[in-house]
Amino acid sequence: MKNRGYMGNGLRIIPLGGLEQIGMNITVFEYEDSIIVVDCGLSFPADEMLGIDLVIPDITYLKENVDKVKGFVITHGHEDHIGSLPYVLKEINAPIYATKLTIGIIENKLKEHNLTKTTKRKVIKYGQSINLGCFRIEFIRTNHSITDAAALAIYSPAGIVVHTGDFKVDFTPVYGETIDLQRLGEIGKKGVLALMCDSTNAMKSGYTMSERAVGKTFDNIFAEHTKQRIIVATFASNVDRVRQIINYAEKYDRKVVVEGRSMVNIITTATELGYIKMPDNLLIDIEQMRNYPDEKLVLITTGSQGEAMAVLSRIAFSMHKKIQIRPGDVVIFSSRPIPGNEKSVSKVMNELARKGADVIMQDTHVSGHASEEEIKLIYALTRPKYAIPVHGEYRHLIAQGEIAKSMGVPKENLFILSSGDILEIAEDHAGVVGTAPAQGILVDGLGVGDVGNIVLRDRQHLSENGLIIVVLTLEKYSNQILSGPDLVSRGFVYVREAENLMEDAKDCVNEALERCLERNVTDWGKIKTLIKESLSEFIWKKTKRNPMILPIIMEV
Amino acid sequence: MKNRGYMGNGLRIIPLGGLEQIGMNITVFEYEDSIIVVDCGLSFPADEMLGIDLVIPDITYLKENVDKVKGFVITHGHEDHIGSLPYVLKEINAPIYATKLTIGIIENKLKEHNLTKTTKRKVIKYGQSINLGCFRIEFIRTNHSITDAAALAIYSPAGIVVHTGDFKVDFTPVYGETIDLQRLGEIGKKGVLALMCDSTNAMKSGYTMSERAVGKTFDNIFAEHTKQRIIVATFASNVDRVRQIINYAEKYDRKVVVEGRSMVNIITTATELGYIKMPDNLLIDIEQMRNYPDEKLVLITTGSQGEAMAVLSRIAFSMHKKIQIRPGDVVIFSSRPIPGNEKSVSKVMNELARKGADVIMQDTHVSGHASEEEIKLIYALTRPKYAIPVHGEYRHLIAQGEIAKSMGVPKENLFILSSGDILEIAEDHAGVVGTAPAQGILVDGLGVGDVGNIVLRDRQHLSENGLIIVVLTLEKYSNQILSGPDLVSRGFVYVREAENLMEDAKDCVNEALERCLERNVTDWGKIKTLIKESLSEFIWKKTKRNPMILPIIMEV
Repeated sequence: MKNRGYMGNGLRIIPLGGLEQIGMNITVFEYEDSIIVVDCGLSFPADEMLGIDLVIPDITYLKENVDKVKGFVITHGHEDHIGSLPYVLKEINAPIYATKLTIGIIENKLKEHNLTKTTKRKVIKYGQSINLGCFRIEFIRTNHSITDAAALAIYSPAGIVVHTGDFKVDFTPVYGETIDLQRLGEIGKKGVLALMCDSTNAMKSGYTMSERAVGKTFDNIFAEHTKQRIIVATFASNVDRVRQIINYAEKYDRKVVVEGRSMVNIITTATELGYIKMPDNLLIDIEQMRNYPDEKLVLITTGSQGEAMAVLSRIAFSMHKKIQIRPGDVVIFSSRPIPGNEKSVSKVMNELARKGADVIMQDTHVSGHASEEEIKLIYALTRPKYAIPVHGEYRHLIAQGEIAKSMGVPKENLFILSSGDILEIAEDHAGVVGTAPAQGILVDGLGVGDVGNIVLRDRQHLSENGLIIVVLTLEKYSNQILSGPDLVSRGFVYVREAENLMEDAKDCVNEALERCLERNVTDWGKIKTLIKESLSEFIWKKTKRNPMILPIIMEV
Repeated sequence: MKNRGYMGNGLRIIPLGGLEQIGMNITVFEYEDSIIVVDCGLSFPADEMLGIDLVIPDITYLKENVDKVKGFVITHGHEDHIGSLPYVLKEINAPIYATKLTIGIIENKLKEHNLTKTTKRKVIKYGQSINLGCFRIEFIRTNHSITDAAALAIYSPAGIVVHTGDFKVDFTPVYGETIDLQRLGEIGKKGVLALMCDSTNAMKSGYTMSERAVGKTFDNIFAEHTKQRIIVATFASNVDRVRQIINYAEKYDRKVVVEGRSMVNIITTATELGYIKMPDNLLIDIEQMRNYPDEKLVLITTGSQGEAMAVLSRIAFSMHKKIQIRPGDVVIFSSRPIPGNEKSVSKVMNELARKGADVIMQDTHVSGHASEEEIKLIYALTRPKYAIPVHGEYRHLIAQGEIAKSMGVPKENLFILSSGDILEIAEDHAGVVGTAPAQGILVDGLGVGDVGNIVLRDRQHLSENGLIIVVLTLEKYSNQILSGPDLVSRGFVYVREAENLMEDAKDCVNEALERCLERNVTDWGKIKTLIKESLSEFIWKKTKRNPMILPIIMEV
């Protein structure tokens, strides 16, 4: 963590998360006494983070420079771009700038965390600029799977940085207009110092399909299934998709039922702000479903990723109180499984098929991220001096790096950053000059950062092997055994089936204790170690298993 | 579990696993006093089976009818078709019949479990038949990702059943000949009672590509990378693939190093049996690698699924003693991630890319399973009366069902079976008449079946929340507290950061104990329950977490 203090030698760009697998987006821009923070996301725990609910960024660097922070500038309203705001705002109280829907979604979060009164926020329109310290930031229209997504042109004394946010180029968007390619070209003409471009689909050749393609599929499915109930699972955050489903329901004269807390929240917010328009009586309550025949109903729900507690899983496994699958029901998965979720998605699909539902997943989704040719287009328009690929796994960043080189960015002007890297750039020089703390902070229940590697390692060990507790009571001074050793196990073996094993294990502990007495070992630490070693060896020999062994000595 | 005894009313077909997600293949065929068992596989544990190594089938039905069992007939040498043999043979000692390579691979397993002396096995050639009780079984040549895969024509007094095993139709196989379509047609002409056909790729339209396509990709990669070391990761069980890699190494004058126990085993067996042919000095030991420049080396290894302990992962994360990734190394993933493994595969790829390796996965794999049109071809050749889709998840079975109907099988002659279903078929009737026990048996270390739902539930609980142990010593009769309560936690919270919490938790337990004394509660069970309830509530209120709480009372 060297060179952390700003030395006044250009523009600093510091990703505090999100350039790697961890997936949360938060980037610090610093110039002299001004700092702006672009996005403030969270990420969901990796498989090995057992029991962890969320991961939020380490903002030590911001806390060290808290007086400089002029504001949070948010590109769009997805969790990996806004989710950490409530946690970060408690430490860094600065105003939030974003487009209308984005601010609307953030409002919900602030309400939940009682932060509405203390947090300033301002709605910015496409084309509008704001001045924050020595920075000017212009919001530029883009296309993504959520309405009101913006790219940013960040004007600094060192030059202009274009940050695309998450984007795609949709020439025929279902709602709104095409990404403002003209403005990007115009800014490119002025001269762009650096381009920070979405890498998610950099490994996909060609162009990403227009959202309109999904509309056609929906139209066909609705037209073909005029007698069945239709259930559509998608991401609540995919506002454009949800909007389309609602519009097709209207077209085919079906009522819409919405289930799942996040889905209800987003539809409420989007409707209040005028982003979803529908007749007053289109949306009905789940209790009213029984008043309509199947062919007059569409259910929009969460759970397209097979999440165990989401509505669709609960419906599939007959754990939902109000909705049961009936043979003939049409269930549309309108999303692609996120890597790691394929198995849970299959499980839900199988269960739906088993109950007689017709499960559809073909052509029901398009990505919200730009593919190779779209990325090239942005390079062609902006012609940046430096390329700093963002958003994606390491190999996606590398893939965009290859694209950047093919578009004329010299190899030495390409920066594949890791979280915490402090990049300093100016017209005449650029390089990583230090690192800031940027490990994710684990959130478990109300605890922020109190679960670390040791706790996770213990959870892993317990999850695979269970544990055996050995308790005994010793007499003070004499070290005579007054009671025990008693063995208690959990998650190790079904004890009724292994009575002999547990009896033998007890003998093994007794022998270890006898050896301690013989050798006059009186140090409790040593006694515990000996119990642990003997019992471990015994259990391994008998079962080839390796439970956690926890000796506890009580003193009377 | 009704109607389990054979009633002499046709041919019984009982899948004991494998028709669903669980993935192991073992099917009982019973007619009067004869039983044959087709395949005897194992499956790998589902995500929620924490700490479990393997899942093997429940063979209660076979044990109840042990005198009838004439033999095991094995279609090919993959784990999900042979892996349970060592476990099952210990209870049901019957001869094994299979093709040469399949028997070779089974031999290795028998050696490991000291079963070579007691187990009869016989090599069968394509086209050859064996008589087992009232059954005659003919082995028919097919194509799959392992050499010597066979389909079976099972002749019973009730009629002929064709079982495809795992197969594809490869008109231009790299080794061996095309699946024996003529013979399938000939048997079809005689009249096939039932077809049991591989469903894995039933949802994929068109034809599966020939293995030769992968060869072309390898040829290009080897030709383009003449200066770099090449590392190829694939399944050890994909013998044809391994063979191709070795042959291209030879063509491009590179030495071959093999790493990974299963990979070494399979190459040794296949070479001994003459299935892999290569010059004597082509294969070199890992120690000799240093004697050759990068451009003269190919490393074939396990770990294409990102498995944490496999060779490729260890290489990627610098945990392999003998092989380090160097910038420029070419790493080829010659397999597709199995659902559920995508995340681990990405992780390994990212780490390899980070170390400067060139990671290639495009066109480096084709499936070993038949797609929609190939399945139709088999239906067209065999024209079965009944269709019993096998091998695949439920929705894959359903998809093959649709194909069967499109090929003229009447709806009522289609049977989508669940594990344990007892299907009885004859020319004039067919139906499920009962069920046999067919839950998977969990294997953890040396223990078979001693880890059940309670243990798994505990492991799950521990993995997400950790535990708090409360120990105290009470005086016999008086119930006075002699020592404690002491609190010990694991996997809950990093205690140094939560000293206050643990102190308060102790107070909470003390209060609960005081209440017990006041109310004259002397029953230990009740005292434990009260401690548990008070502490649970306290911890939840403070942390929104739910650790396992384990009160232990010692008596002096």
